[in-house]
Amino acid sequence: MKGNFKRILYGGDYNPNQWPKDIWQEDMRIFKDAHINSATVNVFSWAKIQPSEEVYDFSELDEIIEMLSREKYDIVLATSTAALPAWMVKRYPEVARTDYEGRHHKFGQRHNACPNSPVYQKYAGALAGELAKRYGSNKHVTCWHINNEYGGDCYCENCEKAFRVWLRKKYKTLEALNKAWNLEFWGHTIYDWDEVVLPNALSEGLDNDKTAFAGISIDYRRFISDSLLSNFVMERDAVRCYDKETPVTTNLMGTYKGLDYFKWAKEMDVVSWDNYPSYNTPWSQTAMCHDLMRGLKDEPFMLMEQTPSQQNWQPYNSLKRPGQMRAQSYQTIAHGADTIQFFQLRRSVGGCEKFHGAVIAHVGTEDTRVFREVSQLGQELEQLGDMTLGSVNEAEVGIVFDWDNYWALEYTSGPTVDLTYVDQIHQYYKYFYDRNIPVNMIPFDGNLDRYKIIVAPVLYMVKEGMREALENFVRKGGVLVTTYMSGIVDQSDNVYLGGYPGVLSDMAGVWVEEIDALAPEQQNTVIFHDGESVPGRLVCDIIHLKGAECIGRYGKDFYAESPAVTRNRFGDGHVYYIGTGMDCPGIAKVLDMAAEDGCVKPVVEEETGLEITCRRKDGYRYYFVINFKEEDLEIPSCLAGNTDVLTGEPVRSGDTLSKYDVKIIRTKE
Amino acid sequence: MKGNFKRILYGGDYNPNQWPKDIWQEDMRIFKDAHINSATVNVFSWAKIQPSEEVYDFSELDEIIEMLSREKYDIVLATSTAALPAWMVKRYPEVARTDYEGRHHKFGQRHNACPNSPVYQKYAGALAGELAKRYGSNKHVTCWHINNEYGGDCYCENCEKAFRVWLRKKYKTLEALNKAWNLEFWGHTIYDWDEVVLPNALSEGLDNDKTAFAGISIDYRRFISDSLLSNFVMERDAVRCYDKETPVTTNLMGTYKGLDYFKWAKEMDVVSWDNYPSYNTPWSQTAMCHDLMRGLKDEPFMLMEQTPSQQNWQPYNSLKRPGQMRAQSYQTIAHGADTIQFFQLRRSVGGCEKFHGAVIAHVGTEDTRVFREVSQLGQELEQLGDMTLGSVNEAEVGIVFDWDNYWALEYTSGPTVDLTYVDQIHQYYKYFYDRNIPVNMIPFDGNLDRYKIIVAPVLYMVKEGMREALENFVRKGGVLVTTYMSGIVDQSDNVYLGGYPGVLSDMAGVWVEEIDALAPEQQNTVIFHDGESVPGRLVCDIIHLKGAECIGRYGKDFYAESPAVTRNRFGDGHVYYIGTGMDCPGIAKVLDMAAEDGCVKPVVEEETGLEITCRRKDGYRYYFVINFKEEDLEIPSCLAGNTDVLTGEPVRSGDTLSKYDVKIIRTKE
Amino acid sequence: MKGNFKRILYGGDYNPNQWPKDIWQEDMRIFKDAHINSATVNVFSWAKIQPSEEVYDFSELDEIIEMLSREKYDIVLATSTAALPAWMVKRYPEVARTDYEGRHHKFGQRHNACPNSPVYQKYAGALAGELAKRYGSNKHVTCWHINNEYGGDCYCENCEKAFRVWLRKKYKTLEALNKAWNLEFWGHTIYDWDEVVLPNALSEGLDNDKTAFAGISIDYRRFISDSLLSNFVMERDAVRCYDKETPVTTNLMGTYKGLDYFKWAKEMDVVSWDNYPSYNTPWSQTAMCHDLMRGLKDEPFMLMEQTPSQQNWQPYNSLKRPGQMRAQSYQTIAHGADTIQFFQLRRSVGGCEKFHGAVIAHVGTEDTRVFREVSQLGQELEQLGDMTLGSVNEAEVGIVFDWDNYWALEYTSGPTVDLTYVDQIHQYYKYFYDRNIPVNMIPFDGNLDRYKIIVAPVLYMVKEGMREALENFVRKGGVLVTTYMSGIVDQSDNVYLGGYPGVLSDMAGVWVEEIDALAPEQQNTVIFHDGESVPGRLVCDIIHLKGAECIGRYGKDFYAESPAVTRNRFGDGHVYYIGTGMDCPGIAKVLDMAAEDGCVKPVVEEETGLEITCRRKDGYRYYFVINFKEEDLEIPSCLAGNTDVLTGEPVRSGDTLSKYDVKIIRTKE
Repeated sequence: MKGNFKRILYGGDYNPNQWPKDIWQEDMRIFKDAHINSATVNVFSWAKIQPSEEVYDFSELDEIIEMLSREKYDIVLATSTAALPAWMVKRYPEVARTDYEGRHHKFGQRHNACPNSPVYQKYAGALAGELAKRYGSNKHVTCWHINNEYGGDCYCENCEKAFRVWLRKKYKTLEALNKAWNLEFWGHTIYDWDEVVLPNALSEGLDNDKTAFAGISIDYRRFISDSLLSNFVMERDAVRCYDKETPVTTNLMGTYKGLDYFKWAKEMDVVSWDNYPSYNTPWSQTAMCHDLMRGLKDEPFMLMEQTPSQQNWQPYNSLKRPGQMRAQSYQTIAHGADTIQFFQLRRSVGGCEKFHGAVIAHVGTEDTRVFREVSQLGQELEQLGDMTLGSVNEAEVGIVFDWDNYWALEYTSGPTVDLTYVDQIHQYYKYFYDRNIPVNMIPFDGNLDRYKIIVAPVLYMVKEGMREALENFVRKGGVLVTTYMSGIVDQSDNVYLGGYPGVLSDMAGVWVEEIDALAPEQQNTVIFHDGESVPGRLVCDIIHLKGAECIGRYGKDFYAESPAVTRNRFGDGHVYYIGTGMDCPGIAKVLDMAAEDGCVKPVVEEETGLEITCRRKDGYRYYFVINFKEEDLEIPSCLAGNTDVLTGEPVRSGDTLSKYDVKIIRTKE
Repeated sequence: MKGNFKRILYGGDYNPNQWPKDIWQEDMRIFKDAHINSATVNVFSWAKIQPSEEVYDFSELDEIIEMLSREKYDIVLATSTAALPAWMVKRYPEVARTDYEGRHHKFGQRHNACPNSPVYQKYAGALAGELAKRYGSNKHVTCWHINNEYGGDCYCENCEKAFRVWLRKKYKTLEALNKAWNLEFWGHTIYDWDEVVLPNALSEGLDNDKTAFAGISIDYRRFISDSLLSNFVMERDAVRCYDKETPVTTNLMGTYKGLDYFKWAKEMDVVSWDNYPSYNTPWSQTAMCHDLMRGLKDEPFMLMEQTPSQQNWQPYNSLKRPGQMRAQSYQTIAHGADTIQFFQLRRSVGGCEKFHGAVIAHVGTEDTRVFREVSQLGQELEQLGDMTLGSVNEAEVGIVFDWDNYWALEYTSGPTVDLTYVDQIHQYYKYFYDRNIPVNMIPFDGNLDRYKIIVAPVLYMVKEGMREALENFVRKGGVLVTTYMSGIVDQSDNVYLGGYPGVLSDMAGVWVEEIDALAPEQQNTVIFHDGESVPGRLVCDIIHLKGAECIGRYGKDFYAESPAVTRNRFGDGHVYYIGTGMDCPGIAKVLDMAAEDGCVKPVVEEETGLEITCRRKDGYRYYFVINFKEEDLEIPSCLAGNTDVLTGEPVRSGDTLSKYDVKIIRTKE
Repeated sequence: MKGNFKRILYGGDYNPNQWPKDIWQEDMRIFKDAHINSATVNVFSWAKIQPSEEVYDFSELDEIIEMLSREKYDIVLATSTAALPAWMVKRYPEVARTDYEGRHHKFGQRHNACPNSPVYQKYAGALAGELAKRYGSNKHVTCWHINNEYGGDCYCENCEKAFRVWLRKKYKTLEALNKAWNLEFWGHTIYDWDEVVLPNALSEGLDNDKTAFAGISIDYRRFISDSLLSNFVMERDAVRCYDKETPVTTNLMGTYKGLDYFKWAKEMDVVSWDNYPSYNTPWSQTAMCHDLMRGLKDEPFMLMEQTPSQQNWQPYNSLKRPGQMRAQSYQTIAHGADTIQFFQLRRSVGGCEKFHGAVIAHVGTEDTRVFREVSQLGQELEQLGDMTLGSVNEAEVGIVFDWDNYWALEYTSGPTVDLTYVDQIHQYYKYFYDRNIPVNMIPFDGNLDRYKIIVAPVLYMVKEGMREALENFVRKGGVLVTTYMSGIVDQSDNVYLGGYPGVLSDMAGVWVEEIDALAPEQQNTVIFHDGESVPGRLVCDIIHLKGAECIGRYGKDFYAESPAVTRNRFGDGHVYYIGTGMDCPGIAKVLDMAAEDGCVKPVVEEETGLEITCRRKDGYRYYFVINFKEEDLEIPSCLAGNTDVLTGEPVRSGDTLSKYDVKIIRTKE
């Protein structure tokens, strides 16, 4: 994205269409006070700009665009296709979705279009083209925002037919399909492509989001991700007919399960995303999401949405504390963002999001704490200018995040229902986060050469080429850390025979004979070589050493004394294999060794409770130092003497940061 | 209802049709022992009295009515329309309902008719007319009981069409509708009435009874309440063609959410209701329901159903302890009832209610504890005669209960999912209940002049005229107590702009800048001026004083020291604003002040753990003194020297009541 | 089943069709190492052996059967009809089921055929016939295995029509039907058989598996059990056309609620079942299931499936500990099994059961703990030969288990939702299990003369003839133990009037006036005559003695001091009535007395924590002695001096067994 924008976009979703015109002027005045320079418009206006099948009416949007252009806003222009107009559903019921229960929906809500409806495709594509034709040449239109938060499923007949086409393209023959899905099991062999049905509650779907045939359900997930992606591509291409340059995005949602974002990112000019932590989301988890979003293209990203104060749709929508929004915003930039955008600029008067925080509250004035914080941040960002824009985050540690694996792991039946992918990944991410060791979140087919350590927890599904890539990485001296439930199945959820961890067995130097499952009230222990003992939970792999050394053994049960954690020399590198679920201290024991093997370093050597992240640009390093802890913390002495670019003041030895305080310390390389 | 009945109706649901005729005679003999003088008949007999589309057969009902008339019963005659006959559903599937999930039902259960089915309307109306023609002139028919426990939803096509008509009548233009529902949000603008769809799981309905458009869903609730009401009115009018005088009712269900009972009561001659507390329902909550039912018409009411012993449909159907049914019955009369009726007189032999308690148990004899208690109560009520009939409950405190608000508050998304309307109201009611301060439950458009204090908790939706009424009330010296989540939206769930608590801001003298939500594990504290500190939960309003004085401040968090509870002089009165959820002691701190401001008094000055209620009639006061506590309690000395009309004995100083003991003490005014 | 097999069948489900042919040879080699002598084949191969409507293709199955015959396997040949071929669902959608929610399913999963679909019946019957014609004369085919784990419901139109026919056959007239279902209640009277609809979520079904009309729902359960049974009979008869001798079975599932297994067993030549305890299932519950399966025909049974290691479909699929599978297998034989078969012989590569344990793991070798244990057991069983085959389990205690009662008790509404049938039965079974007193699980119409004690807990539904049978049993000196919620309704869930426990009142000598329900947080106490006091929970019957003596009284509440447990002399026997839910110690107090009255003895007199079971054959007793406890336990001295047939060694006084150790000690009678 280097070069996408000339300044940090600061603004957010703006819906003047919901308000009378006198409010528009008031908005402009107030936004100026807040140093807002960008607005995302036309996100949900399809019914307004296309009131019927034959008619477009851009008059209001024209006025909005004119006003914003006049005020020199960077306009993020959405295509409005994420919520169907009522008239379309009434005239063409096929445009609505059929849900997992097999119920065809009527008009309502949003994200409600069947991606494989030809009618939807026709009108969505046409609208995107019309918008680009009309506004594509406006230099204030800085970014195209296709649709909104793509997601959800559809199980209608159009989707069923499209699924068969998709499968035919992928598998070519019925023989290949029957084999991939192992349809001999339970005698599900098919003899005709039309015998394929979508896997929902009326067919292969089991309770609790499980499935009788993971192979089918994983392919359905890929198919529906691809279907929505093809909607995106269709609109993007329609825009490109009239506007060859302006970057095109759509707003993603962190670790949202439904879409293979690594595949999506390839089609997007710039990644943008919406960051909505809950009141009790750990800061490490938010950081991980940022790193994942940055990792999608390995480039800076846009923060398309966050709330300046509170949300409405969570069970408990607590306020952001004073300074929290600012700290969260700088954390976002620290991890790679080049924009800070809010949902939304003015609180709506009705609809289910009316209690969602906004820059301008229902009181309608600037005289609010939230506005003052927005304004202060705006001033700071304006002053920051393009200093950090397009700067680079670097990491020697890569953590594999893979949507196919996400789906496969959570669909699989056995050995325990308590395995959730994101939580598993986050446990390992947190180790590095707590130590200010930079991490890249990487896809299964990423370039591994850049890393000293690759962490691949619960790498259950190992797709084509991945084994070789990982073996090469280790052979050349890399350190790989992997865990229980890894190496087990191929892209179709069929087991790699020959013993667990399947294709990882050679490099891990172990054979897992059995996988025990522990109920929540049960636990084992792992005893490390130094005698330290930590709990083992969730699963316990029963491990035989095939070249590896044991670095932690079980303390209990019939497999007491057998290896729980191992380390194997493979080529010039090492592979760590973790056989049971451990809490932070146990994970730290292993990752400490791996970090030492891999010689990875934190961004600053000193231990600190502060979050410190580094972005590089033009011969400078920018250290984002943020305090997310309750107590005051001292800034590492190695940073003393350098300038905090937010204040222009030098940082002195012994300076402290209190909760939510931020410094951006620039050093010359 | 003054004058509706000549004696306290004592009896209940009676289904001789389920039994052979020799049992009927046995019933008559046993009921006489129990001093039963009334029976509710024909509640579920449609299939029996109309065995097919063309045929009525009243022969059995004739016999029943004749028998009861011979025995001089007050007959409560039901119209039998609350459960469809099987033949009707088979012949006209449209009469069955379509549920929230969009599933059209088959024959089964009860309360199963689509209120907007023309077929249902035709046959239900006709049946009510036939019954009135045949039995309307029987002087023993003392009350008409239309249908039974109206309730439930329907989402069928007939309802959808009727909804559009209802909306057209209400909003006149599409512009008005689009504005009321704020359909610009998410681009839901409609251009044709036929684009409106019912808000269920296939359209705007979200999980957990939430909705994407509260405006639509609230209107649907009003519509379905009106639809069922129109069924009631239709039957009532059919009865009135033949019987101009006998009072007409239908049995309500306390705080049942589905129907706007204040609107219903306007069409009913007398309110009746079914009282089914659980084993752990507080007595204060039952009292509140009685007061609500009395408040619907501000007149005495009928207790149409209660169980003499236990229920069957609760998770745990514990027995009423000895004396409990009697105490509960007198509590009912104390709060305004002029009848005591049971479900049911004889336990049925099969069907899902066969374990529901009855006057005659499955054993079939009078030799049961329950029968003896029923019989004792019957004797007492007979002796009481018409003494308390039509007497008046008076109160200086009014608590606002409003179904629109009930719906709106619970539909709204944010700030917390833990706000439930009835619990909120009950918390404040309990304060007065515990102190024997009489309360009226009043509608949003009630006459406020009669009150010294109005309590309006979570008055989230403030409809037209309400602000003015409340302001006038306070200006003239009244005391208003309101809370967080008040004053915020209009009848369509659109926010009153300008800051919370919206239209109540002026009189409350505060501005609520932000509303923080607390998860269950979180709490703040409220520190009152006397230094006492109590917990604050659920939400915390961040309050600015705009004329009000602070009477309690927050003890924690970034808004520590800012006002949590305020008091404002407005005209000659005062407005209390409570900004956070407190337990009983916190609420008591505030209401103590309000009570002092309002000079409201308990029915007797002495503090006591007894429930004491007063009804007035013909120059007498009747004090209903009941002990719901475990320990014996002394009767307040101010009542000593007067007569307990149940025993005819004078109450002496120092007399005590043990658990469930009751006295009705009469004093001359 | 005496004489069904010549040796202990040892093997299990085998699906070579899922594997390439080179694996087949490897299988044969490995299985031989494990002393496997049997394989269950063709369980899910319909799509393979009938690839289209017109074509059978047995070529692969021929090869499998040939191979197994060559190796002298006892072949258990399944008919493959438990999972529909995809082509059939596509061509004839009626073959798929309609679920409780009223949704007609598409292709997917298994156990998916509508039992009343004529198309399904036609093709399933034809296939069974084809298989018998082809393989029936093969002497290695030792057992026919029809379908697989029959179960589930269907609510389609074909089933609805079939239900009406079933009802007409049962009730003859509409009058009888209306009376049986008590359709006067809620006016559900029907006038035409076609007005009957199936009781699901669209009709009489309530949440949580409850129903508005238990009579209808219980008849539906009987109907669907009969419908599936008629599928079984149809296939069995088709087999019998070509194979007159080989025993025919289908695999049952212990206490599975859906089918009346006592009725099924009458149509089966031999009972077989699948034993899948969870990680926390008590051993007593597994033992009870075995005894129930043996009781179905009062004959030895087949263990058709168990896992050698772990399952996949439970929440937590823990491994069987070393020795556990062996101990579990011997427990199975101890309780009456003549076969030990696994699901499955080789772990599948894909599909939802791929993590289900198998004899050959994914590693594919014999070098696993699990294989070694399977192999050891195989060797032992081979050595055991036919020694125990067809031997007899004898018991003086019978516990009544009745599916009608199971359904009725759990459908009933009130007095508490916490009554679950299997848990109730198991509580009483456990008493005898813990004391090594043999138990037969018996049907409502079993021969009672053989028993000294009959235990009939929660005998809620007492069907025709049962009262007389129990009274005769007691009159002749038998001891009957029954409990709360007994004697209450007839076959249609209509109450026996005259007081609880209805038809058991006379023999119990009590009248239960009321049934109190206790919420989980509530409890009473039962004080026995010796002063010992135990908790009473769940329900408390309020009991009047009508000839019985009180042996335990309530300690609390208004019925304190009244009887909680009673004993009545009736003829030459005694009836114990337990009025409240007690834990093990309370139940033991009562059953100790009953056991003394009945003079029932454990298999060995000495008290021991070991499970000891006895089977008799040809003048010998075989004592199966198993240690399921953590600590080592001494073998009862009375068994010393006899031979352990597993080792051929004599058992010496003082010998101990550690956890999961087993001895089979033979004594001459």
